[in-house]
Amino acid sequence: MKLLVDKKGRKHLVEGEKFQTDLGIVDLNSAADVAKSHLGHEFYVLNPKLIDIYEKMPRSGSFILKKDLGAILAYTGVGSGDVVVDAGTGSGALALFLANIVKPNGRVYTYEINEKFAEIARKNIEKAGLQEYIELKIKDIAEGIKEKNVDLVTLDLEEPWKVFAHAKNALKRGGFIAIYTPYIEHAKRTVEVLREESFKSIKTLELLERELEFREKGTRPRTRMLGHTAYITFARKY
Amino acid sequence: MKLLVDKKGRKHLVEGEKFQTDLGIVDLNSAADVAKSHLGHEFYVLNPKLIDIYEKMPRSGSFILKKDLGAILAYTGVGSGDVVVDAGTGSGALALFLANIVKPNGRVYTYEINEKFAEIARKNIEKAGLQEYIELKIKDIAEGIKEKNVDLVTLDLEEPWKVFAHAKNALKRGGFIAIYTPYIEHAKRTVEVLREESFKSIKTLELLERELEFREKGTRPRTRMLGHTAYITFARKY
Amino acid sequence: MKLLVDKKGRKHLVEGEKFQTDLGIVDLNSAADVAKSHLGHEFYVLNPKLIDIYEKMPRSGSFILKKDLGAILAYTGVGSGDVVVDAGTGSGALALFLANIVKPNGRVYTYEINEKFAEIARKNIEKAGLQEYIELKIKDIAEGIKEKNVDLVTLDLEEPWKVFAHAKNALKRGGFIAIYTPYIEHAKRTVEVLREESFKSIKTLELLERELEFREKGTRPRTRMLGHTAYITFARKY
Amino acid sequence: MKLLVDKKGRKHLVEGEKFQTDLGIVDLNSAADVAKSHLGHEFYVLNPKLIDIYEKMPRSGSFILKKDLGAILAYTGVGSGDVVVDAGTGSGALALFLANIVKPNGRVYTYEINEKFAEIARKNIEKAGLQEYIELKIKDIAEGIKEKNVDLVTLDLEEPWKVFAHAKNALKRGGFIAIYTPYIEHAKRTVEVLREESFKSIKTLELLERELEFREKGTRPRTRMLGHTAYITFARKY
Repeated sequence: MKLLVDKKGRKHLVEGEKFQTDLGIVDLNSAADVAKSHLGHEFYVLNPKLIDIYEKMPRSGSFILKKDLGAILAYTGVGSGDVVVDAGTGSGALALFLANIVKPNGRVYTYEINEKFAEIARKNIEKAGLQEYIELKIKDIAEGIKEKNVDLVTLDLEEPWKVFAHAKNALKRGGFIAIYTPYIEHAKRTVEVLREESFKSIKTLELLERELEFREKGTRPRTRMLGHTAYITFARKY
Repeated sequence: MKLLVDKKGRKHLVEGEKFQTDLGIVDLNSAADVAKSHLGHEFYVLNPKLIDIYEKMPRSGSFILKKDLGAILAYTGVGSGDVVVDAGTGSGALALFLANIVKPNGRVYTYEINEKFAEIARKNIEKAGLQEYIELKIKDIAEGIKEKNVDLVTLDLEEPWKVFAHAKNALKRGGFIAIYTPYIEHAKRTVEVLREESFKSIKTLELLERELEFREKGTRPRTRMLGHTAYITFARKY
Repeated sequence: MKLLVDKKGRKHLVEGEKFQTDLGIVDLNSAADVAKSHLGHEFYVLNPKLIDIYEKMPRSGSFILKKDLGAILAYTGVGSGDVVVDAGTGSGALALFLANIVKPNGRVYTYEINEKFAEIARKNIEKAGLQEYIELKIKDIAEGIKEKNVDLVTLDLEEPWKVFAHAKNALKRGGFIAIYTPYIEHAKRTVEVLREESFKSIKTLELLERELEFREKGTRPRTRMLGHTAYITFARKY
Repeated sequence: MKLLVDKKGRKHLVEGEKFQTDLGIVDLNSAADVAKSHLGHEFYVLNPKLIDIYEKMPRSGSFILKKDLGAILAYTGVGSGDVVVDAGTGSGALALFLANIVKPNGRVYTYEINEKFAEIARKNIEKAGLQEYIELKIKDIAEGIKEKNVDLVTLDLEEPWKVFAHAKNALKRGGFIAIYTPYIEHAKRTVEVLREESFKSIKTLELLERELEFREKGTRPRTRMLGHTAYITFARKY
């Protein structure tokens, strides 16, 4: 698989030897860094990184953005060798990032109840070449978590609190749970049930991302900004 | 090394068998999950995770916060096995997070010109047990980067643009550079020089973090908020 | 009354002819624009504007900040000649701004149940010279609003919804209600009861203010920022 | 002139006796609070307030939003009887708000160099019935300000610093200048020239507005948010 980037910065993930764009057909047989379409347009040819797979991946359900992904990575300090339980898988974006970090010795167990979502995720995982490190379970995580000694549980579910007791059993002491909830009422219930389950170090965050634009006329934050995705609640088992 | 957490949530990193706090002396010889001080106060006893080392680490120079750390991790997709060049090391916080992700097969080469900072960083790295994966160089990165085929270059320097040409040579195609600049003029110069050096996919971001508080009286964002740390500029070598 | 500003920008509201500061005693008898203390320090001598009274006013209860004051002024378009009902008065800050706008033909009726707060407000109103345009009522607004044909009702109360039916009766068609609530649950209940009472054009806002600093080292948003004051809900009677 | 609001909350400013909408023709001859179109759809019939004129006004050039309008009103404390100088007029939105506040004894002198903009503004001012209190000058304010004893100067210009010396002459002691600049470089230059001109109490702000949505599924900030309009710099003449 190759990443093609045209002169406007548009990216294409390409499997196979020939690729058709609105700028012409590109032949990928040559090993050159820059390919030319039959219409003379140039494309950078690169080996895709995880971030490229992520950006071009077919999506289902809610899709976690980088600002929120980053918060989960940084606030939990997830690292090489960690065992992670994740639900729901959705399109698999978070599972991919986590697997890319915990491999080769760690594992991500990701639960998805919706078979169509799971199928999309399975393809995304294979495209990223991470199937060895991710176990995709078509299963309701609210029925229980088999994994033990887990370092991190990540939840993006309608009713995440149904899973907190299971998560507590599955987690190592010192381990983290991270819960993604778009609505304030859900964040509130999340915190209440975490407190009931004696989770510690509970903290609910929201991240706002602004882009700074450098134009000839001057510098300024972008006019458009995403107003909200979700609150992320972190807690630990002591 | 153990992590002790008292009932108010205050954390202590403890080396050795006895630990004195304002709540009394704690004997860590027993393997119990909860220790009692000689004054009867209870402490959770845990194996520290990277995040605990990070939170308690001696600091020098500027210190990168989790919201910004997370952006670097998520926007570059840095993963297992990656080779990273980092400068300046400062207290080593970013190098630790990166090493914890790229190990066991990746490496972090971190440059620090200030010997005192380097010494603090060296101790932090050892405390985190990551010395095998981090090479700490007491050297001015503006004089050149020896490493090749680098996946990611991270810069937190007064004049980061002096390093961009070197970084471009060191980077793999598709690799990322991430530059941390507190001031807008520096972010602007950063973007201008990145453009001159033909870096692509240039984007400058700022992350704002809000905490949501759930009290008996009601739910609300915290009164205090950090107004600014830095802009982070990302770019790639195609 | 005079406004004295020292060279560091610190402001003092001064009644009488002599004023003692840590920079010496200032004699205000002369009509000069700049006064000198007996220690030789200079002070600007000015006629205070409303904003100076506001900034130096004794405070009680919650105190509305300029960002929120501004939202109330701009979203309701309150203007000359308008009749406004306000509760609770608190220190009177909002009533002062409103009176300064609606005078000479408009009126502000402000209700305060706490006698101590009312006394502080009374003094603030007199200091601002606006007593002719503000009627301060020591009364529970939840018991009813006598005023009719009101253009704007502003509420900063523990349980503002108890007043919505009264407010609707008091308001002119097209008139506005603005409700200040620090907690999300209160904003939610506010919106629910406004809907029940058939208020229209309901909108709940929050304003975040960032200051930009221009220093020799560079330009950047201030490190400290206020994370939250309150949500303001606006609605109209059609 | 009447304000018609349909059941979806869409507003129409209507002059004349009949009004055609996609919901049918409405006859405004009756004095009823609710009118019915010939297709049976109901409309609220109201006397428009300034805010309605503002929201429906033909626009030209940049258009100041309520969050920024509010900041100017609250940070300067502009009030009844004040004399204001404003440039450029643009569509007149800011001049309308200011006139609505300073009338009947105050005045707004608004300068616009672009005749087309001035013509649009003139119509907007008449529609709002504020022509008695606003003097619209088709003139380059950089050539000088005739007005004296001014309480407030508001500037939304490409190169506002060309006017600062004139503004200082025109302003009363204690008076305010407020400068609206979308770009950071312009805000910086603004602050530099204000310092050179010995303006005091200089402060540059940015306001971010978030809307809170209360839906059946839950409460959350709106997904879309305006990322940036402008920085507003305030300063005073001592």
